[in-house]
Parts: sequence; structure tokens; C-alpha cells
Amino acid sequence: MLIFKEEEIKQQVTINRETIAVVEDAFTDLATKPVEMPPIMRVDIPENNGEVDVKTAYIPGHELFALKVSSGFFNNYKLGLPSANGLMMLISAVTGEPKALLLDNGYLTDVRTAAAGAVAAKYMANESITTVGVIGAGAQARYQLKALREVRSFQHVLVYGPTEKRVLEFKEEMEESLGVNVYIADTPKQVVCDSDIVVTTTPATEPVIKREWLHPGLHITAMGSDAEHKQELEASILKVADHYVADVKKQVSRLGELRSAIEEGLFSERDSIVELGDLTSNKTPIRTSEKDITVADLTGTGGQDTAIALYAYNRLTKTAQLG
Amino acid sequence: MLIFKEEEIKQQVTINRETIAVVEDAFTDLATKPVEMPPIMRVDIPENNGEVDVKTAYIPGHELFALKVSSGFFNNYKLGLPSANGLMMLISAVTGEPKALLLDNGYLTDVRTAAAGAVAAKYMANESITTVGVIGAGAQARYQLKALREVRSFQHVLVYGPTEKRVLEFKEEMEESLGVNVYIADTPKQVVCDSDIVVTTTPATEPVIKREWLHPGLHITAMGSDAEHKQELEASILKVADHYVADVKKQVSRLGELRSAIEEGLFSERDSIVELGDLTSNKTPIRTSEKDITVADLTGTGGQDTAIALYAYNRLTKTAQLG
Repeated sequence: MLIFKEEEIKQQVTINRETIAVVEDAFTDLATKPVEMPPIMRVDIPENNGEVDVKTAYIPGHELFALKVSSGFFNNYKLGLPSANGLMMLISAVTGEPKALLLDNGYLTDVRTAAAGAVAAKYMANESITTVGVIGAGAQARYQLKALREVRSFQHVLVYGPTEKRVLEFKEEMEESLGVNVYIADTPKQVVCDSDIVVTTTPATEPVIKREWLHPGLHITAMGSDAEHKQELEASILKVADHYVADVKKQVSRLGELRSAIEEGLFSERDSIVELGDLTSNKTPIRTSEKDITVADLTGTGGQDTAIALYAYNRLTKTAQLG
Repeated sequence: MLIFKEEEIKQQVTINRETIAVVEDAFTDLATKPVEMPPIMRVDIPENNGEVDVKTAYIPGHELFALKVSSGFFNNYKLGLPSANGLMMLISAVTGEPKALLLDNGYLTDVRTAAAGAVAAKYMANESITTVGVIGAGAQARYQLKALREVRSFQHVLVYGPTEKRVLEFKEEMEESLGVNVYIADTPKQVVCDSDIVVTTTPATEPVIKREWLHPGLHITAMGSDAEHKQELEASILKVADHYVADVKKQVSRLGELRSAIEEGLFSERDSIVELGDLTSNKTPIRTSEKDITVADLTGTGGQDTAIALYAYNRLTKTAQLG
């Protein structure tokens, strides 16, 4: 079995047009192929404020598929450790043999999650924008901005986060690495009211965005909720938006923003929901007017994991052969 | 991350009283502790006659828990490869970090499965027996016999298998390694009628044991069925047995012999079912008479995987320190 470490993987895989295209293709596969993607497996360890998730998907036509183990242990900071951990395993779809381990510590998840945000914006946000807002100032907020830069031009960034120090670090880093102007907002409301695209990247369990803050032309990508108890948007936002798009309906109705909307009776399990793969497979943007309000609800799919892991594996093994 | 290979693991873990006790304790944990054991995750790849299963369980009080990836690809023989593959990962229940990989190619699964058979026989079969019957002549049939020898004395073995060559190999090997007399039966019926304990180790999808063959005192352990389409016993056997025991009710009602019995209306999902952990935690054999007919329905649990993986890890890391 081949084993690759985080540093090697980071040298081969970054957020760029290629990785965004890889993730876009994964959504097309999900919409057009009989992808085998079982429900997420989850182990909760409440006494340590932790959870371990397992995701997988087999995309027909590929000789390998990925199985991802990712964990979030939210007391780790007390031990000076990052909360997120994880690795991906590549398994032969022909023989069942485990072929490679990508010891990425969650890096590939960050990349494929940010890439999905870019794909959503590509097909849903207005072409011409000025300001991107991010709620949350952690690693994923950084990756989301970087990915958005590949699909939209913008000069201004508005950020809100609960910890001043982390927000200041975010501003400094992003201004330097992306050459944008970052402004610090005092409230999430400011971010939403003054941005064209808003990305929420929080582990919130209560809405951080209210319906009354929506304005014509706004696109929101909510990527924080990926569990039964999480929620970033007031549920009615999904109903009043002109276009609401899920990464995978079956997942968002259980783990995403749609869950609360169903619980509040605003949607039914039986409602047909547009999935991101419907847009990517038709190569058709969804909005019909610059004034449309659009919302993307992303929970993260095993299909993205398999796609990014295969991309990483192919580059890593090619490099190994050349080297 | 520590990585251990099959050869090292085999040196440290064999079927013996210690590993059987480890698996017995796992069943007690399942019955008495709030073990977190999500449903099995499964990926089917029908075009290659393959499936990949993921099992896991967190047993409170242990710092690590196992996540097992196991596969069965039943066309592999055409490529000269074994059908089974697999590995176990040990993850910190404190921080979520992956700590060790046990590249056991399914060996630890064989051990913990055979050990469960021995635990079932220990608490369910008559003390005094003469003949053990096995249906199926593969690796697991061998392991089951070896494990049974640790809990019951017997001199005679009756085996039935569909392939003459494999049955002859089985006879030769078992006679040499266990010092028992192995007789080859022409039919499964012979095996059942002339044995005190019968273990079924097949991937059958139609019953291989008929109700009319049952006789007083018989104990059956059915360990082959672990998927929705498998079945080794006529469903009515579960009903007419004096004692029917499941490894874990939730699993056997979906994947074990109980599934067919529920489908045929012989049991209801709501019926209370004795689990193996109920017997091990009370240290009480189940039979009230030598004439009782008993049936154990084993699908294999993540609890056993975590227990055997922890046992292996502790021995392997101790050896590494000493060495």
C-alpha cells in the first residue's frame, strides 16, 4: 500500500481551476451516473466533544474509490491540537484491495469543500460583483475566498467572526495572499447587507443569517451545517430565495439547512429540489435575473472526496514515477 | 501513525483462550455499556461482484476505537487473488487522531468471528459432546473448529463442502493440526443429523439446513449470513429452537437469519430477542435441558472488531517497546 503525507499532498493539490473543475465533474457524475454513495457513518463521542465521520462514494468508470475518515474533536484546543483530523483511503473497485493512504489531516476536505463553494458561485451568483462576505474567520473561510477568486473577480471582502484576534489575522493574511481589501464587520448583518456573495463557514447551531437582511442579487453559500444539530440560515430564507440548490438532496434534508426548513413545515421530504449536479451537468447558470436571490446548501459529499482523492493519487503516483 | 503488517499481527494474535475471552468481554460491553455502534456502511460494486463494508464501535472506557474496512470481491479468484481484503484503523477517542493501521488482510476478522462462535458454543451447547459438524470448508470453517476446541472437547468432525478437493484439504489439515478425526459427509443433512454442534460458514442465499433435520441436544451457530440476501437456515428453525440468540438484534434483523424469519411473519421487529451479551454478562449458560435445541445467529459486530484490534495493538506496541 502506498502512503502519502500531508506535505507531499499539499505540493500536488492546491485550490486552482483544475481542482475546481475536478469537483465540478464530481457533481456532474452524481447527477448523471449511478454513483454508489451510502449515507454518512458517524460515531459521536460526547464526553470528549468529538465526532468521527466516514464518507465514501464509488463513481462508475474509475478503478479506485475513496473512503474518508474525518474527525472533529472540539476540546483539542485545550491540548494545543487542531480540532480536525482525517485521512482518505483509496480502494480498488476491481479487487477490493486498499491501494493507498492519503494522510492529509483533512487538507483535501478543505480543498474539495472550498471548490464546491466556487462551483456553486459559478452557476448561481451574479457575474459582476464587488464584495464577498464571509462569516467565520477560520481555515475554511480562507479557502472559500481563494476558490471564489477563480470564478469571480472582486476587490472587497467583508468578514465577521466572534474572536477579534482571529479576524485580524484573517484580514492580514487575505490582504497579503489575495491582494484584496478586507474590512472587519461588527455584525453578521453588516456582512450580509453589504455583500454580493456571502459564504457562511460556522459550526452554528442557531441561525446566523436572518431573512430580513436579504437583498436583491444576493447569493449565499451555507457550507457550515453538516450534522443534525447545525443551522446557519433562518429556515424561511430557503423558501423566499428565488433559487435554492442542494449539493445532494438526501443529505441536506438530514444534515443541511433544509432539515430545519422541513421541520418547520416549509418544505416536504417529497418536494423536488435542484441539486448542484443538475446545474453542472447542464452547464447552465440558474439565475434568470440579476435581482434573483440564490442559496446553495452544501453538506459535503463522498463524491467530492473520491474525486479529489483520485486527482491527488494520480498526481502523487506520477510524481513518484518521474522522481 | 503506526503501521503493522499481517505477519507481525499473526505472531501476536492467534485463536486461544485469551482472544476468546477478549471477544466475550466485547459482547458483555455491548450488553452493559453505552457502546456507540452505528449501522454497517456498505458499498456494492456489482459489476465486479464485490462489496466493501465499514464497521466501527466505540466502547466507553477505552482510549482508542477501531474502524474496519473489509471487502469481498468474488471474482478475484480469476485473478489468482483472495476474495477477502481488509484493514483496521485505530482512532483516538480522546482527540480523533488516527493512531495505528493494522494491515491484517482480514485476519483479525477471522479470529474475532471464530472467537464469537466459541463464545456462543460455550454458553449454548451441551457440555459433553462427541461430534462437531461444519458446513463449508474454507478458512473460517478451520478457525471455527480451532476456537471450539478451546471451549469443548470433541474427537470427531463431520464436514460438508461443495468442492471435493477443498474438503479433502480441510480433512488433512484439521486432522494434522487439531488431532481430530475428520469424516467427509455427502450431504449437509448427514452433517446435521450426526453432530452435536453444527457451524455453518457459507455465503448461501438459500437455506442449507432444514428444520426436519433438527434433533434433541443440537446447537447450531450460523455465522455465514451478514447481508440482506444471505440465508443459511430455514426460517422456521429459529421459531422451533428452544433458545434462539442473536449477536446484536438490530443487525440480525436486517442482515442475519432473523431477517427471513421476520419476512415470513414468524417474528416481529418488536419481539424481544436474547443477545449473546445477555449470556456473557450474566455468565449463565442458556440451556435448561440436555435436549434443548439452541441456535446462535452471528452477523459480526463492530464491538468485536474494536476489542480484537485493541488487543492486537496493545501486544504489538508492547513488543515494539521491548524489541
